[in-house]
Amino acid sequence: MNAPGLVLHHYWRSSASYRVRIALNLKGLEYAIRPVHLLEGGGQQHHDAYRRLNPQSLVPTLVHDGHAIGQSLAILEYLDERFPGNPLLPADALARAQVRGLALYIASEGQPLMNLRVLQYLQTTHGLDEEARNDWVRHWLTVNFCNVEAQLTALKPGDYVSGDAPGMAECCLVPHAFAAARFQLDMTTYPTVNRIVGNCLQVPAFQKAHPGRQPDTPEEFRIG
Amino acid sequence: MNAPGLVLHHYWRSSASYRVRIALNLKGLEYAIRPVHLLEGGGQQHHDAYRRLNPQSLVPTLVHDGHAIGQSLAILEYLDERFPGNPLLPADALARAQVRGLALYIASEGQPLMNLRVLQYLQTTHGLDEEARNDWVRHWLTVNFCNVEAQLTALKPGDYVSGDAPGMAECCLVPHAFAAARFQLDMTTYPTVNRIVGNCLQVPAFQKAHPGRQPDTPEEFRIG
Repeated sequence: MNAPGLVLHHYWRSSASYRVRIALNLKGLEYAIRPVHLLEGGGQQHHDAYRRLNPQSLVPTLVHDGHAIGQSLAILEYLDERFPGNPLLPADALARAQVRGLALYIASEGQPLMNLRVLQYLQTTHGLDEEARNDWVRHWLTVNFCNVEAQLTALKPGDYVSGDAPGMAECCLVPHAFAAARFQLDMTTYPTVNRIVGNCLQVPAFQKAHPGRQPDTPEEFRIG
Repeated sequence: MNAPGLVLHHYWRSSASYRVRIALNLKGLEYAIRPVHLLEGGGQQHHDAYRRLNPQSLVPTLVHDGHAIGQSLAILEYLDERFPGNPLLPADALARAQVRGLALYIASEGQPLMNLRVLQYLQTTHGLDEEARNDWVRHWLTVNFCNVEAQLTALKPGDYVSGDAPGMAECCLVPHAFAAARFQLDMTTYPTVNRIVGNCLQVPAFQKAHPGRQPDTPEEFRIG
C-alpha cells in the first residue's frame, strides 16, 4: 500500500527508530527517511528545527500528512489505527495487553537505561569510563532479557509472541536483541527470545529495517 | 460500575501503581488492593508467588477474572478496551497519538531512570551516596519536565491535556509531579504542567488514588 506523506525522522542505530521501520514495513507502507544525527552538531535532535517537530528531542518522529508523532509505541498504535491491515496487535483484549506489556517492558524498562543521553551523563557527571558504561548496559540488558524470557516462556508462544505473525512485541524484541549483540551480551540463556528473533530475521520487513541497511548507515556498519 | 474480579497488586508510593489507581477510579471501577512491599524481604516483587503473576518483578499487576496484566500503560489500554465508559484516550487517531506520546515519554524516559532498582544499583555498584542519587533523580526529572512543558505548550491545552476530561496523559503526569515534589524539584518553571496537575488534584478519582491514602501507606506518610 502506498500512503503518500509518511516521513520518518530517524537515526540508523536507534532502537526506537528500528521499531518503527519494522512496523511500517510489516504494514507494507512506503515512507521517506530523514536522518537525524544524534552525535553531530551536539546532537541534531536538540536543534530548534527538530524540536519544533518533536519537543522531546528524541528520535523517531513520524510525520503523516503534516502531523508529527513522537514515541515509537505511540507511532505503532497510530499506524495500527490508521492502517489496520497486517495488525500489530491481536484482536482479543487480553492478548493485546500481553503483547503491549512485553513491548512496554522493553521500551520503558530496558532500552531507556542504555540510551545515549544516559551513557553520556554517566560519563560526564559520574566519570564512568567506557568499560564501566558497557558493564552498566550489560547489567540492565541481562535483567531485562531474563524477565522477557520468563514472560515469553509463560506465554508458550509458537513461531511468534502471539499468533502466527510478528507484531508490536517483535518490533521491540528484535532491536533490543540487536543492541544486545552490539554490547556482546551472552544470549545463549534466552532460547525463546533467540528462536523468535531468528524467525523474525527471515522476514523481509525486518531485513529491510535493519540498522545496517539505512541511508545514514556509515560505510563501516553497512551490511549486504 | 462494579466489575467483580478486579484486583490491583500495587505499592503505595510507586508511580506506575498510582497511574492505574487513577485510571480505575476515573472509570468508576471497584477493585481490591493487594500490597506488594518493594523493600521488605528483599523486595516482595522478586518472590516466586509474585513472579508467577508478573515475571517482570515490577508493580503494578492488575488481575481481572483471573488473568494477570503487567505494565501500567498496557493496563490502561486494557481498561479502555474492556470498560469504554469515561475513555482514557480521545476518539481521533492523531489526538490519541499525542496523548500516548506524552504518557509514554513520562513512563519510559522519565520514571524508569529514578526507579528504586536503578537507585539501588547506583548506590551498590557505583557508590553514589544519597545526595548524588538525589542529584541524579533531579537531573532526569528536570530534563523530562522541561520537555513535557514544551510539548504541552505546543498542544495548547484547556483544563486538561486533551478535551475536557483527564485521561491517560494525566494518569502519568500527576504521579510524576508527586515524585518530583518528593525530590524537592522546583516546579515553578512548568506553568502548564502545574495548572493541569492542579486541576486534576480537585477531582475525586485523583484524590482517592493518592499515595497518602492507600491501605499500605505508612502512618507517617498518611494524609487526611
